[in-house]
Amino acid sequence: MRLGVCYYPEHWPESMWEDDARRMKALGIEQVRIAEFAWSRIEPTPGEYDWGWLDRSIDVLGAAGLQVVMCTPTATPPKWLIDRHPDILPIGADGRARAFGSRRHYDFSSPAYFAASQRICTAVAERYGKHPAVAYWQTDNEFGCHHTVVSYSPAAVGRFREWLKARYQTVDALNRAWGTVFWSMEYRSFDEIDAPVATVTEAHPSHRLDYRRFASDEVARYNRMQVEIIRAHSPGRPVAHNFMQLFTEFDHYKVSADLDVAAWDSYPLGALEEQWFAPEIKARWLRSGHPDFASFNHDVYRGMSKLPFWVMEQQPGPVNWAQWNPAPLPGMVRLWSWEAFAHGAGCVSYFRWRQAPFAQEQMHAGLNTPDNRLDVGGNEAAQVAGEIGKVLAANADANAAIRSKVALVYDYEAKWLFEIHPQGADFHYPRFAFEYYSALRSLGLDVDIVPVDAPLDGYSLIVVPPLPVVPADFGARLADSGAQVVLGPRTGSKTADLQIPANLPPGALASVLPLRVWRVESMRPNVTEAVRLEDSQDASGADGFARHWRDFIEGDAAASLDVRARFADGHPAYVRSGAFHYLASLFDDALTGQLFGLIAREAGLGTLPLGDSVRISRRGALTYVFNYGHETHTLTEVADDAFVIGSRAVEPQGVSVYQST
Amino acid sequence: MRLGVCYYPEHWPESMWEDDARRMKALGIEQVRIAEFAWSRIEPTPGEYDWGWLDRSIDVLGAAGLQVVMCTPTATPPKWLIDRHPDILPIGADGRARAFGSRRHYDFSSPAYFAASQRICTAVAERYGKHPAVAYWQTDNEFGCHHTVVSYSPAAVGRFREWLKARYQTVDALNRAWGTVFWSMEYRSFDEIDAPVATVTEAHPSHRLDYRRFASDEVARYNRMQVEIIRAHSPGRPVAHNFMQLFTEFDHYKVSADLDVAAWDSYPLGALEEQWFAPEIKARWLRSGHPDFASFNHDVYRGMSKLPFWVMEQQPGPVNWAQWNPAPLPGMVRLWSWEAFAHGAGCVSYFRWRQAPFAQEQMHAGLNTPDNRLDVGGNEAAQVAGEIGKVLAANADANAAIRSKVALVYDYEAKWLFEIHPQGADFHYPRFAFEYYSALRSLGLDVDIVPVDAPLDGYSLIVVPPLPVVPADFGARLADSGAQVVLGPRTGSKTADLQIPANLPPGALASVLPLRVWRVESMRPNVTEAVRLEDSQDASGADGFARHWRDFIEGDAAASLDVRARFADGHPAYVRSGAFHYLASLFDDALTGQLFGLIAREAGLGTLPLGDSVRISRRGALTYVFNYGHETHTLTEVADDAFVIGSRAVEPQGVSVYQST
Amino acid sequence: MRLGVCYYPEHWPESMWEDDARRMKALGIEQVRIAEFAWSRIEPTPGEYDWGWLDRSIDVLGAAGLQVVMCTPTATPPKWLIDRHPDILPIGADGRARAFGSRRHYDFSSPAYFAASQRICTAVAERYGKHPAVAYWQTDNEFGCHHTVVSYSPAAVGRFREWLKARYQTVDALNRAWGTVFWSMEYRSFDEIDAPVATVTEAHPSHRLDYRRFASDEVARYNRMQVEIIRAHSPGRPVAHNFMQLFTEFDHYKVSADLDVAAWDSYPLGALEEQWFAPEIKARWLRSGHPDFASFNHDVYRGMSKLPFWVMEQQPGPVNWAQWNPAPLPGMVRLWSWEAFAHGAGCVSYFRWRQAPFAQEQMHAGLNTPDNRLDVGGNEAAQVAGEIGKVLAANADANAAIRSKVALVYDYEAKWLFEIHPQGADFHYPRFAFEYYSALRSLGLDVDIVPVDAPLDGYSLIVVPPLPVVPADFGARLADSGAQVVLGPRTGSKTADLQIPANLPPGALASVLPLRVWRVESMRPNVTEAVRLEDSQDASGADGFARHWRDFIEGDAAASLDVRARFADGHPAYVRSGAFHYLASLFDDALTGQLFGLIAREAGLGTLPLGDSVRISRRGALTYVFNYGHETHTLTEVADDAFVIGSRAVEPQGVSVYQST
Repeated sequence: MRLGVCYYPEHWPESMWEDDARRMKALGIEQVRIAEFAWSRIEPTPGEYDWGWLDRSIDVLGAAGLQVVMCTPTATPPKWLIDRHPDILPIGADGRARAFGSRRHYDFSSPAYFAASQRICTAVAERYGKHPAVAYWQTDNEFGCHHTVVSYSPAAVGRFREWLKARYQTVDALNRAWGTVFWSMEYRSFDEIDAPVATVTEAHPSHRLDYRRFASDEVARYNRMQVEIIRAHSPGRPVAHNFMQLFTEFDHYKVSADLDVAAWDSYPLGALEEQWFAPEIKARWLRSGHPDFASFNHDVYRGMSKLPFWVMEQQPGPVNWAQWNPAPLPGMVRLWSWEAFAHGAGCVSYFRWRQAPFAQEQMHAGLNTPDNRLDVGGNEAAQVAGEIGKVLAANADANAAIRSKVALVYDYEAKWLFEIHPQGADFHYPRFAFEYYSALRSLGLDVDIVPVDAPLDGYSLIVVPPLPVVPADFGARLADSGAQVVLGPRTGSKTADLQIPANLPPGALASVLPLRVWRVESMRPNVTEAVRLEDSQDASGADGFARHWRDFIEGDAAASLDVRARFADGHPAYVRSGAFHYLASLFDDALTGQLFGLIAREAGLGTLPLGDSVRISRRGALTYVFNYGHETHTLTEVADDAFVIGSRAVEPQGVSVYQST
Repeated sequence: MRLGVCYYPEHWPESMWEDDARRMKALGIEQVRIAEFAWSRIEPTPGEYDWGWLDRSIDVLGAAGLQVVMCTPTATPPKWLIDRHPDILPIGADGRARAFGSRRHYDFSSPAYFAASQRICTAVAERYGKHPAVAYWQTDNEFGCHHTVVSYSPAAVGRFREWLKARYQTVDALNRAWGTVFWSMEYRSFDEIDAPVATVTEAHPSHRLDYRRFASDEVARYNRMQVEIIRAHSPGRPVAHNFMQLFTEFDHYKVSADLDVAAWDSYPLGALEEQWFAPEIKARWLRSGHPDFASFNHDVYRGMSKLPFWVMEQQPGPVNWAQWNPAPLPGMVRLWSWEAFAHGAGCVSYFRWRQAPFAQEQMHAGLNTPDNRLDVGGNEAAQVAGEIGKVLAANADANAAIRSKVALVYDYEAKWLFEIHPQGADFHYPRFAFEYYSALRSLGLDVDIVPVDAPLDGYSLIVVPPLPVVPADFGARLADSGAQVVLGPRTGSKTADLQIPANLPPGALASVLPLRVWRVESMRPNVTEAVRLEDSQDASGADGFARHWRDFIEGDAAASLDVRARFADGHPAYVRSGAFHYLASLFDDALTGQLFGLIAREAGLGTLPLGDSVRISRRGALTYVFNYGHETHTLTEVADDAFVIGSRAVEPQGVSVYQST
Repeated sequence: MRLGVCYYPEHWPESMWEDDARRMKALGIEQVRIAEFAWSRIEPTPGEYDWGWLDRSIDVLGAAGLQVVMCTPTATPPKWLIDRHPDILPIGADGRARAFGSRRHYDFSSPAYFAASQRICTAVAERYGKHPAVAYWQTDNEFGCHHTVVSYSPAAVGRFREWLKARYQTVDALNRAWGTVFWSMEYRSFDEIDAPVATVTEAHPSHRLDYRRFASDEVARYNRMQVEIIRAHSPGRPVAHNFMQLFTEFDHYKVSADLDVAAWDSYPLGALEEQWFAPEIKARWLRSGHPDFASFNHDVYRGMSKLPFWVMEQQPGPVNWAQWNPAPLPGMVRLWSWEAFAHGAGCVSYFRWRQAPFAQEQMHAGLNTPDNRLDVGGNEAAQVAGEIGKVLAANADANAAIRSKVALVYDYEAKWLFEIHPQGADFHYPRFAFEYYSALRSLGLDVDIVPVDAPLDGYSLIVVPPLPVVPADFGARLADSGAQVVLGPRTGSKTADLQIPANLPPGALASVLPLRVWRVESMRPNVTEAVRLEDSQDASGADGFARHWRDFIEGDAAASLDVRARFADGHPAYVRSGAFHYLASLFDDALTGQLFGLIAREAGLGTLPLGDSVRISRRGALTYVFNYGHETHTLTEVADDAFVIGSRAVEPQGVSVYQST
């Protein structure tokens, strides 16, 4: 548990640096990230490096006792590089090159940029790889930000053809896998294959999915190049990348596999405004963020990080980039910080030390205002720093690794597949995965978020949001885990080639779940379908309702299928077969929570109904309680002397931490 | 009355073909459409045809006693053709060529594609023109699908200039006809004229209308080329094209004039979701389709087909291409099939035999599921097949031609004109034509839908939805018909050159309708205007309300104009002059129904208020009753022994057919 | 006070001209605008002028005693010119040239068009500059219409680089001013700088703002060229340009500085439909326009016109160009005309004499219908003409110049800046300026609208809607004025380079307003914040609510800051320091009105609560009363014999004018 900050010495007069470093240290900050956008200062003229200012700024930070997270500056290639190699610019779906003038204006498939990146990364890593103040590295910045993963350049298409050759070997195999016979889309050679864009109506979905997989692989390859250069020149320093919340155009698992630290950038208010939430939900959590959103991401990145994950950028006040940008309620910066630690974060690093008065992000708050006075967020960071000391002193276990009894399987390809092939216009994978997560969290359960190929032993409950493509061994691994397994609709509905399985969904899972989805329907937003539990206690006859989607299920004649809920028209809505529970639709929040509670108890887990405002997390022997609501929440069962932070009365925006007895 | 199916032998192993054919025949299917997307299999390499598989599949179908509808494969030119002639690709309004990778990626004006189409059509027609199993032909597939009629290619512009020369002879005549003196848009030669696209503000409306007319003519010319090739090589076999519901970027009458059979593709649920209907209407008819939508199209295509029209593709279950894709209620596939026959269909052909597990339409249901089990739609088709036998046995008249007492004039150019020149943003011609049709149908009236140049004798009531351009003789023909004539607002409001008539609207109709529309206004969606009948019985003083539009009318001083309803501000809302009834606005559904009922009775027609869920159609001596609602509808006046299908109690999704006594 | 009309002799047979001129004169019209779109008739072939028709039409008008407003025809370059110089066409943000076929298809930076414009302007000015019938000139037509100010052509970029050189001298100065060090956007020379378009995410805001300033300056330069040519050839004739309501992509003050008459085109119904108003507001004022919209623009253009401003085009009936186009209520054309005179107009000129039956605007009403009968608007114009005579006869003061006690500061750059850098997506400057104006008008106050550099002496109340950039001397000038000053939120929040002021907002105003805005937040549309006055009489505890935005304010320790209202969370919502009143948010209409009323009374002004339908304006010794509502408004305090027009009972759509006693 430690605090960090993002700092831009190049934005400020050198005369301010020493005071900045001193004040950081005094505030309780231990690590400082620098230089991720500084290429034009490091190399102001092609091939002529200006290391002086950067040497001095690192020295100042090191002298103050701060550890530096050194970055490669590749997110912002300078103008002279673009002018020399205009083919660095990515090509959009509209066929136009994107222009210089903001950031991330590069194509992952550009040979010129790959070479230029190797060169600048090597230069930086050579110079600072063994600098005593440099403790960590970050590659680039927020891969995928501003929809920059997919490019339609000739370079990308050329590399895509190679990628296809590697995957399918022969074009006949590709034609079969995609089913190009449909609409005479057959190819005679890999060289006939273009990017799936600008077609008259939707391009072939298998073609599109492979293009997305390819584009994702290009990100991983590019990051791997940087990691290898850093490791060669800076052995022993962990390498991180800062993922951005829900920028899911590439597979974060694949990139993380090459890293030591999976870090992410947490902006609870910006995310609430920009994501799928309904206007009334956005209004409700306006100045706190959704109670499960940051947690969801903490658990996502904890699940893929070799070392404890970090929050590389923590929102410290209002930001500039959402459609509307409210101010956090007093206490929220502290609450968010503790929530990250409760979920296993090794570091929470605020973005940024001081609000810049210029350029695109001048309205983005920092720990200090542009006139260099400590802002609300800065004061709360200082409070957190003090509390960390208390917690570490009180409990040796505070930094313990986390392993939960509940696993939620989360997948990136599922998002691309449903985006390409939705069948219902609002079938948004991250939303549905989040809603399952939120239902579990509102039951007081801690959750590990894991990839589909993760080891599953030791879990009591495994929840699988709609997962179209499942590995061949997934059913067996689920069954072997001994856990109760909940599967969302559409799970197993596609082969890896994006075809319908020969035995119909759930495809490969039919061996453990003896049913057949013989029909599906998607439902428009103003349509729902009543759902009734077989043992309903509800006098109205409806225990909840289905939204968005229905699978029409029939059981194998030979197998026993326990129908536990039905739609109003009699079709099964929820069936069970042994430890496998299949949900044929996406239910309203209350019914989802009710069913998850039921199954969790069948899995031997204790549940604690928390409502929508209070959340509890456990790390080692400590329990953390967070109050996102407007009323004080009282912990009646905890002894007064158990509290390390706070007390039994958890006030709005409050945090309490107590030791388990 | 017979059933058909769409089949893709190239999608399935040859080992399945015989069983497929046997099961089709056993189900009661008589005709099978094939090969409309099979170019890449027919000619896998430029100039090298592979007829073997197609020969064998036709032989298999023929051997099973099935009649083949052979298609030209031009809707899907293969990749090698596009690579050789990139100028085949159409150019969008954005100036970009659309890409290979879906379907319909061709420009109707491309000389290269015209030649390539001649070649492949000739090859197919030569090979199968006299094959004993080939009974019918289909040209291409769904002209206009995915907005592919209008292209902005150099080839199109070149041909447009020729088209303009033919129409106007001299550029001076064009300048006068369009009124290019406005805004200095005058041309000095036809070669100065470009496509009306990418202008700073709206391009000249006459220019735009002519471009749409030209583009429509290009489709007719292209289709005619195919028909002529087929007729030369396959004499005596009827030629069809499958129009798509409301793809109205070209004039279906002009294309049909070259065909024997006007067929259409009926997707009641997909259409409901994608068309103009309000969200609550979409929810209401979610799993049945709108009760008048399929009927409207049946009547449209009956009106232009030389032989009995067909439904070439009938929705058999959920589809894949709407924003949301619900499943039809049990019984709807049967109901839709009977409804087509009741409106005069010669054949109802389901799309498709078996759901494909791959490519863009893998979520489109067939009569069989991908694992080759008969689906709900398949069972209902079998039921229909059995019932057809019963009906044909019971009544020699079952295939009778239909001629109604009510005609509704429907026009394609009207749609383009109002789209180009709406004056009110939601002035959507097909919607208003449909609403008039629906009002007539809810009165129990059978309706012929006819073009503006159709013979009008024999009708008792002629309804003209807003028709901006009327032929010079239209008034006289209406008057000569002896029918009561209802004219919607904006009728006669434009000359053929898209100018305001010199005598103001209704222009050429003023000779029979002595009034002058001296002002108009369009009204935004949240504005209505109360309407009161002159003999109103309504205590509130309002009998209904006007929406969207108001014509301000004054009568000729000399002529008698009977004002039968007024707007709240006193202006006439509905006037009558002899047999001519002019509606100055678009009224709410109830008031439209009330007025149409009144006028129908004045025309001597019996009306039967049916509400919004039950519909009745008469063909020969048989009356068909369809129930789209959720309550059983009881036919109290029909003798029990009159029923050929069903009974007096028409259940939800039910069909009853009885003989007139 | 006089009436005019827009006339297009080239649209009509020459045989109609004399009668038209005679009828204009008879109606009471005194001036006629011609020829602004007639280039293709003036120069039908490159270099060959056809003056004959224009000579004759001017002669006819002059002979009838009418004064001609002669126009340069540069808004519509003919096809032959575009074909010779395709680089005249502007380039859109999509990188595509806009096409010929409507109007305004030229790039202000095109050297070819600048030269061609010089040539045609010189030709026209030479020919008619001293013609006795030509009394006035108009340059071009509606600069900025159809978003034609900003172009991304190579010519524009080249001139932008020159503009930047002139502004910053060195590229280092530019880098510092913009803060390009952020994201490595630094430039090494002016030649590296492109247009701020097509970037991956938002381009640099200072870059964007400078590009907008540059584009605005290009308009001023282009207009100045025309004015200079006209003045050289037509000395003594006033030169006007007709601005279009709220086409604010360029600085109207800067263009007006070169003109004699700032004219504007008033379309109250079209504007209501197309501007920011909510649907229910659009329905409410459907057929009258918003009671403050035309007035707002009258006061804007009065504030920048050397001679009395004109309404160059007055809506005479329904128009064609809004999404929906209702008909004005009877009386509104008269009311609008008188309202213009009440606000100081020298001329009200109707658009157009007769509705054209062809081309884009054929549905735009004129004073006469296309069949040449006088329309409602024509009759009302005749009524106004008669009343003008009465008013001028009754009161020598009727044409008096207007100087109000209230000033509202209105700025164009503010609009661009907030558009580029909104921080809250709906922060629409003209809307907020209009809402302040409307609140003042509903208190019965007359308002001068002035630029930020206007002399401020003599005002009792100065209202400043959110004004991000303030001149260094603005605070001192406000203080010196002696007026009460109301400042909206975000005032002083940016430097001229679009940076945050070093002392935080209100930046340079802190010397007169001792506060610091240490934080801001924007609020989504479904969020408000309660506001309570310190001396609230409201039992509910809330006197109104804040919308869109909040400044978080703290006072200087040393200075006294009087907090007069607070938000529910205790932060100041409205503070006062001496004569300066700072509003920290945008309040609901009622609360804004309440506060403005309070401050107006503190400024010694009498207020008269008028509600939302009645408006009062004073010019010289005459008071004009306008009723936009549906109920008669009675002026109880005015003597019966004081009325020049109307009476004490002002009926709906009515006008009364009385002499002050």
